[in-house]
Amino acid sequence: MKVATIGTGFIVDWFLDAVKQNEGVTCVAMYTRKKEHAQNLADKYGIKDIYEDLEAMLNREDIDFVYVASPNSLHFQYSLQAMQHGKHVICEKPFTSNCREFQILDTYAREHHLFLFEAIVTSHMPNYLTLKEKLPELGTIRMVQCNFSQYSSRYDKFLAGETPNVFSPAFSGGALSDINIYNLHFTIGLFGKPNAVQYLPTIQRGIDTSGVAILKYDGFTSVCVGAKDTRSRCMAQIQGEKGYAVVESETSKCAVLKIYKDGKEENLTLPQNDIALYYEVKEFNRLFTEQDYTTCYQKLEYSRTVMEVYEAARKDGGIIFDADHIS
Amino acid sequence: MKVATIGTGFIVDWFLDAVKQNEGVTCVAMYTRKKEHAQNLADKYGIKDIYEDLEAMLNREDIDFVYVASPNSLHFQYSLQAMQHGKHVICEKPFTSNCREFQILDTYAREHHLFLFEAIVTSHMPNYLTLKEKLPELGTIRMVQCNFSQYSSRYDKFLAGETPNVFSPAFSGGALSDINIYNLHFTIGLFGKPNAVQYLPTIQRGIDTSGVAILKYDGFTSVCVGAKDTRSRCMAQIQGEKGYAVVESETSKCAVLKIYKDGKEENLTLPQNDIALYYEVKEFNRLFTEQDYTTCYQKLEYSRTVMEVYEAARKDGGIIFDADHIS
Repeated sequence: MKVATIGTGFIVDWFLDAVKQNEGVTCVAMYTRKKEHAQNLADKYGIKDIYEDLEAMLNREDIDFVYVASPNSLHFQYSLQAMQHGKHVICEKPFTSNCREFQILDTYAREHHLFLFEAIVTSHMPNYLTLKEKLPELGTIRMVQCNFSQYSSRYDKFLAGETPNVFSPAFSGGALSDINIYNLHFTIGLFGKPNAVQYLPTIQRGIDTSGVAILKYDGFTSVCVGAKDTRSRCMAQIQGEKGYAVVESETSKCAVLKIYKDGKEENLTLPQNDIALYYEVKEFNRLFTEQDYTTCYQKLEYSRTVMEVYEAARKDGGIIFDADHIS
Repeated sequence: MKVATIGTGFIVDWFLDAVKQNEGVTCVAMYTRKKEHAQNLADKYGIKDIYEDLEAMLNREDIDFVYVASPNSLHFQYSLQAMQHGKHVICEKPFTSNCREFQILDTYAREHHLFLFEAIVTSHMPNYLTLKEKLPELGTIRMVQCNFSQYSSRYDKFLAGETPNVFSPAFSGGALSDINIYNLHFTIGLFGKPNAVQYLPTIQRGIDTSGVAILKYDGFTSVCVGAKDTRSRCMAQIQGEKGYAVVESETSKCAVLKIYKDGKEENLTLPQNDIALYYEVKEFNRLFTEQDYTTCYQKLEYSRTVMEVYEAARKDGGIIFDADHIS
């Protein structure tokens, strides 16, 4: 499995580390607007070719997958462009800016028999998979609560009046898109599509710097806090009538998992790779190797549900992206 | 300060323990419908007189305060009746079933120059007072999250088809009234009246066995989870731009308080009396001794705010009490 990357943020560093750790996966090329942005990463991981011309990179025949880790608003066009060159795609979260974009990618992938994966670590973490398996032991679920808050390295600039991509509606930024999306995945991966969705954002200059997403299910509610303007003790709790589960970390990694039942604590934490992306790359490589398109398209159905909830929440919160004006 | 009690639940046990520990406060009488219900407590705390006739107890001249710890729906009538006999009142939380009842008690107390206290432990806990004092250090507040969940000893009966008082709309029960009320106090005590209130309950047979109360403030939201149908890791978090505070316990006791700022943890936990009610009894005794009606009525203004938020939340969640039908 030969991959090429689009983007040079810290997530690409982690992705390349995950690639390095997965046998049979190699990165052969990087695209960036300015070569010097990618040079450090290329040197670090021994990647020979850096392209400033995306078409040139996409025309290479030895590339199987393009990993899209551009600013959020560009996920759609880069993913589409890569597929139009016959490349399979791994696209970072949040998948697209809205369902319209998602549908175009989804249709294109299926019609052209291409792999299209959403790169969301949560779904692939060993501790999350354990939680999913243990869920029935908790009895009837009555409450879910998540908190993923991380003071953004760009927030000081934002407060100073600048508009970094991650806080820009033009780049499909904000706390829901960037961080609360993990809580949505955490919840929807366990419980499927909610009956109703609500989003209560704190909006500054047109973007949500933090907010509470509320997912209503039959018999319980999932309350998802995501913040880029403050820190917190990140966690998730699932409360069932027979017991409760606690994740003592952000919902992206699910680093520590404990279940409390019959007055006893059960620590179910499995040791996990420091590079959370290791697991998704491993899974994508397996599906590619086995040419398992069926599972890929099942995952797309799941991603569609998340995108529907995400867009509904975002619009309920009054956050409109530039990408929403295109039809 | 001589008190008499109404009620025989476990809260009365704690109250009498708190009375015992506060010099100058004594309990001289107990009212109960059936003498045997109070006998154990009377023996334990050396209380001579148990009354099955409330009027007879209220006619005693040596009683200063009546402590009302009846089922929620009866707080109003017992408090009023006690004041009509010239007694000062300490009334358990939730103060009354609605604002109409609160207003009658409030007016009566002021017009007859009587003390009327809401017995809410949160507001009087040393760690809560520290938190209040330290709040400005956290910078602009962006998020508040509470979780107070306690599997009710009566929930199994409720599931079996019975309707214990605590799960009965006739007795003004439910998770908001009984447990989430602490989170409302926790939040309103720190931030005052919210701009808007919402309540998302899980309703079974007409009562909320759990729910999420959402208090909207300028620039942040407080998300309050309260459950009587499940357990959880109880906690509260306050996220400011400069740091965050974590309460590692139910918001009633605020047993452990930590503040995280500049990458450092500061453990601000003060040792607290095991009997949380110790602090409120101490404070009420002080105000009575100093005849400080001004502070008492300021506290009533605060209680009024909580009652307004509580009633608004409850009605938003579609929970109607029998007490609401009286006008």
